[in-house]
Amino acid sequence: MTRLLFASTPHFNAEYKALLLGRGEAVDGVEDRARAILADIKAGGFAALDAWSQKIDGVGLSPQSVRVTQAQLNAAMAACDPKVIASLERAAQRITDYHQRSKPSDDIWVDAQGVTLGWRWTPVDAAGLYAPGGMAAYPSSVLMNALPAKAAGVARVVMMTPPGRMHENPAILAAAKIAGIDEIYGVGGAQAIAAMAYGADPIAPVDVIAGPGNAWVSTAKKLVFGHVGIDSVAGPSEVFIIADADNDPAIIAADLMAQAEHDGLAQSILFTDDANFGQKVLDAVATMIEAGQTGPEAKISWLAYGAVIIVNHLDQAITLSDLGAPEHVQIATHNPEALAKKIRHAGAIFMGRLAPEALGDYLAGPNHVLPTGGRARWASGLSTHMFMKRTTLMGTGIEGLRALGPSGVTLAQAEGLPAHAASIALRLKAVDGT
Amino acid sequence: MTRLLFASTPHFNAEYKALLLGRGEAVDGVEDRARAILADIKAGGFAALDAWSQKIDGVGLSPQSVRVTQAQLNAAMAACDPKVIASLERAAQRITDYHQRSKPSDDIWVDAQGVTLGWRWTPVDAAGLYAPGGMAAYPSSVLMNALPAKAAGVARVVMMTPPGRMHENPAILAAAKIAGIDEIYGVGGAQAIAAMAYGADPIAPVDVIAGPGNAWVSTAKKLVFGHVGIDSVAGPSEVFIIADADNDPAIIAADLMAQAEHDGLAQSILFTDDANFGQKVLDAVATMIEAGQTGPEAKISWLAYGAVIIVNHLDQAITLSDLGAPEHVQIATHNPEALAKKIRHAGAIFMGRLAPEALGDYLAGPNHVLPTGGRARWASGLSTHMFMKRTTLMGTGIEGLRALGPSGVTLAQAEGLPAHAASIALRLKAVDGT
Repeated sequence: MTRLLFASTPHFNAEYKALLLGRGEAVDGVEDRARAILADIKAGGFAALDAWSQKIDGVGLSPQSVRVTQAQLNAAMAACDPKVIASLERAAQRITDYHQRSKPSDDIWVDAQGVTLGWRWTPVDAAGLYAPGGMAAYPSSVLMNALPAKAAGVARVVMMTPPGRMHENPAILAAAKIAGIDEIYGVGGAQAIAAMAYGADPIAPVDVIAGPGNAWVSTAKKLVFGHVGIDSVAGPSEVFIIADADNDPAIIAADLMAQAEHDGLAQSILFTDDANFGQKVLDAVATMIEAGQTGPEAKISWLAYGAVIIVNHLDQAITLSDLGAPEHVQIATHNPEALAKKIRHAGAIFMGRLAPEALGDYLAGPNHVLPTGGRARWASGLSTHMFMKRTTLMGTGIEGLRALGPSGVTLAQAEGLPAHAASIALRLKAVDGT
Repeated sequence: MTRLLFASTPHFNAEYKALLLGRGEAVDGVEDRARAILADIKAGGFAALDAWSQKIDGVGLSPQSVRVTQAQLNAAMAACDPKVIASLERAAQRITDYHQRSKPSDDIWVDAQGVTLGWRWTPVDAAGLYAPGGMAAYPSSVLMNALPAKAAGVARVVMMTPPGRMHENPAILAAAKIAGIDEIYGVGGAQAIAAMAYGADPIAPVDVIAGPGNAWVSTAKKLVFGHVGIDSVAGPSEVFIIADADNDPAIIAADLMAQAEHDGLAQSILFTDDANFGQKVLDAVATMIEAGQTGPEAKISWLAYGAVIIVNHLDQAITLSDLGAPEHVQIATHNPEALAKKIRHAGAIFMGRLAPEALGDYLAGPNHVLPTGGRARWASGLSTHMFMKRTTLMGTGIEGLRALGPSGVTLAQAEGLPAHAASIALRLKAVDGT
């Protein structure tokens, strides 16, 4: 039952903690089998990939037909509503602009001791993206995962999506074409992660794997982490909305339902300083659900994990929000920027009565792949950083060697590493004869 | 037997591949027990931590004495050679300077459609660092792991190091004091990772765990990844040296041994375009080993994984280096910067005949925690980024809503998400009445 909680009541802290920790992310029983699939395909290549695809997806794979052709992509583009194509293109441009601006920059300088220092970012050679089938097949996710890699300058971007059903949803392939994805394969689940991590000739391996997926995909990604990079460990998503009474309850209700309709495990919480407004939002949500104006998952999520929390003042909402470190915070108040500045832990913040999170899902520009389940305490959303790596640079001539060398020898000796000491000391001797 | 390989010979590619892939990183049998330790301490708190410490380290823990006191830190400082203290302080300053400069910066702007966009980096609340005991107990590693967290602005930096033996190596505690670490606990192995990830009252949990360790520590870190952030999956380290004949063979030999003496699984490879010089380096290495001028691990590493590779020209060394994507590349040639620019995959590059990797281990400034085992293809060294996270920002008024809204509604409808569409459409209607 959806809660109307008052932050001023004695049991509130315990209730709020239960609300935050109540959602499960269990993946029991999946790990051993995912591990077996990975090992099998690593050792057995394409033949093993084919066998697992038959077993799990009921679709056999051949090296000749596993890759989606240009003709299939063109057919998908043609099968889409032109308005959808135009909107995807619009979104792609805005996402690209944002991510290009957020590319990390190089630096190199000579310090006061004459030591050259710096770093350089380079894109990975190849990135892989998993696009799930079924309920969570969103063309917007294809854009959000592929375009940061493209903006980073990755030369080879690969996508895998379950076979069989991919032509049922042409917008997925259309988004892949608009994003400029270089290779698309009809391979699903843990076996797709194996093929991307280890390769399965003719499929070459990639360096980084991103993209959402079910428990099989998430578990397989976690297992290959270390051999390749992965974007994140994703769980069910959430929105915290901070709103005063000067909002239309029906609009805030729609915002809460927009999160809830993603997934029965999603969490939508409204913080408001006006109990009357909070009650109106609760009523508006009930109306939306009864009228069938949301997907069926919304009701499940809202009844299990939704809440309206009446705070004593809006600053208290900030404190409570930081405890949850949510994926999204939406601030619909007077002067939302001032409140946004006080938030320490959030994947993304949406500021203003006219800035719903749904715009961020599609085309505001920032990525919609964001840390969930409190991971915004330490993790960031998907960005060009995920598809680039930094090489540090150091160089020195005589001056820098003289400045750093003696301390280096002292520390090497203190650590009991004689060849480290010799590596520095022999150079000092070559330069100064001592 | 250490190899002298010629890149011009027919079997070279296979030999080189075997050389790169020959090192193991096996941690078999560790995972199940590490998982049990983590689950036990997560559920049982400090009492479970105490029990595992007794069982594994033979040292019981009490809430009163587990934390290193200020008096113990002062005693450690006093027990160190003042020259070592001065060198650690020097190193700390240079590492801090470099890492402060590499802090990512915030950005916020209004785009042509009137949409406010940006991002903001904030430090995590708490970071934990593991400092191993035994052979790999390096004060330089304490600085390299703690100072990026401090430079990032992390308010609470915690260190754990095995109990019992920590007072045998006062430089470790001295380095912790110099780095300004806030809390130090005598807890070792997987149980330390558990205490940092989940807390064990009076020890509060952290958000990110960094630092080297044995198979127990590495495995435990990988298992807690997702609940907290971890720095990397580390394996044995390596250096690739690219040197022409205008170097002193004894100096290059010392550089090779400096890497080899870290670990029997380390890898040192010299690429040179002069076979005669290559042979001289081989001889100089043999002399160093025979004369006992390195640690005993150096001989083990060199005989198993070392090599001198004679390339046809130095550009070929770049190509071969990128195939290995090594932790360190050292370039001792004429115009090393030109060669460095061509390298795509390396954790760190050292440029010039007077710039040995050993300076980077201690006090050049860049971090010495770097991706190993080919992970430089996709991973970066430790930096302030590890201890900060990015929150994306978006805001809009009427103009931006009108510009983005209709496309957002189109995409929400195409994805079958009615509440997403309503969240945007209701605002458009409120503003424009349509």
